[in-house]
Amino acid sequence: MSSLAERQPRELREMIHNNEFILPTAGMAKGYVQGNLAIVPKALAYDFLLFAQRNPKPCPILDVTDVGSPEPKRVAPGADLRFEIPKYRVYQNGVLTAEVTDIAAYWRDDLVAFLLGCSFTFESALLNAGLPVRHIEQNCNVPMYLTDIDCVPAGAFHGRMVVSMRPMPASQVVRAVQITSRFPAVHGAPVHIGDPAVIGIRDIMKPDFGDSVTIHPGETPVFWACGVTPQAVAMTVKPEIMITHSPGHMFICDIRDEELAAL
Amino acid sequence: MSSLAERQPRELREMIHNNEFILPTAGMAKGYVQGNLAIVPKALAYDFLLFAQRNPKPCPILDVTDVGSPEPKRVAPGADLRFEIPKYRVYQNGVLTAEVTDIAAYWRDDLVAFLLGCSFTFESALLNAGLPVRHIEQNCNVPMYLTDIDCVPAGAFHGRMVVSMRPMPASQVVRAVQITSRFPAVHGAPVHIGDPAVIGIRDIMKPDFGDSVTIHPGETPVFWACGVTPQAVAMTVKPEIMITHSPGHMFICDIRDEELAAL
Repeated sequence: MSSLAERQPRELREMIHNNEFILPTAGMAKGYVQGNLAIVPKALAYDFLLFAQRNPKPCPILDVTDVGSPEPKRVAPGADLRFEIPKYRVYQNGVLTAEVTDIAAYWRDDLVAFLLGCSFTFESALLNAGLPVRHIEQNCNVPMYLTDIDCVPAGAFHGRMVVSMRPMPASQVVRAVQITSRFPAVHGAPVHIGDPAVIGIRDIMKPDFGDSVTIHPGETPVFWACGVTPQAVAMTVKPEIMITHSPGHMFICDIRDEELAAL
Repeated sequence: MSSLAERQPRELREMIHNNEFILPTAGMAKGYVQGNLAIVPKALAYDFLLFAQRNPKPCPILDVTDVGSPEPKRVAPGADLRFEIPKYRVYQNGVLTAEVTDIAAYWRDDLVAFLLGCSFTFESALLNAGLPVRHIEQNCNVPMYLTDIDCVPAGAFHGRMVVSMRPMPASQVVRAVQITSRFPAVHGAPVHIGDPAVIGIRDIMKPDFGDSVTIHPGETPVFWACGVTPQAVAMTVKPEIMITHSPGHMFICDIRDEELAAL
């Protein structure tokens, strides 16, 4: 993997296009932004865009393609979202019907692709500052929880926020807030610090998605809005068709993490 | 006006609803956010929302109403955008056809209202920090210029950015950047500092909109993206109907300026 960490986004996307590897993209193209994918028909795109606009913490938009175009012009001009993600999931009427390495067969003139910020960017910033990221230390998936925090509804879309959790030593909690506040385009500052029950989480050791991680004595759980939220919410309306990346298999953008920093 | 400065937003909106005054709202409800209004039919709303999302500096969205609803639920729950702005402009097929104190006669079930951040919020922050705001000192309108900076197009909408200019003493330019960077929801950091020619402005003393202001020796012109941009861009497609506030006659929100601060 270390060689993939040093590759440029464009090279990696070409390798992915050619199916030279089908792997989760964590750690690839160090310093560059990776994005979550959600493709919906134009008929749903307004509600989806408005939902994201009203809920910027769980749904930070990096790019929206023109109707029928698979090119994310702002974050990777020239790229083709039909081929340059290692693995996709296709949902039809809310049911997962295929997991594929390209979506050429599913593409239509009325589809709109959304790229949403992912936590890799702020996790890099936390690690660069010497703060722990437990699920990376433990080599597992980040723990994610369904909360009782209602998202602001938009048209057909409504639902509760999903959050991810990273334990921080008490002395580093403030620093974690400061560091992630610089990155509003990738979930930004935490949504909650401390007692999980306050946001409707019953058992911190039993995440709804991902894996549980160790919380050491003296550590405080810190919760960030999670990019799983928009996909989960969109799925509740059972769109005729919706295509996402497979978990962990993200789109690698040409923009750098630091370009997303607000300051 | 000083008594209006101390009034609560809700009281002022009720007075406006009852036509107790028809005045520009600058200085009213001190500390509270004021917003620009743009109402378009649902058929144009997706492109308008996407244009705003792609151009957040000139088009910072504060709220978007549900289709057919005149209530800006997030910034002023219970308010009615048909009555609670002192003066409106109605454009039909790109032509100004009416200036009215309420828009009940024009309201339709397919209209969507956008409230966009305005510069009053960051100007308060500049003044609070002791920085000059020349057009307020000179009691005139802010100078605005059409630049050669292309906005990112979205569907039917494309055009160039309009900027406003405030001269700053050279020693205060950095501070002006810092202060306004805290407020990305109301145009945020400047888009340009210094030589007007770099962004296509020929004569700084001849603004395209508003009034010219004095630039003292040793002062640097500082340019911010301006909320006139989205209205100007939307007008180029000559929507069947589009309704805006009359210049300076803004919507007074229930949220405070400081609630919009990113940090």
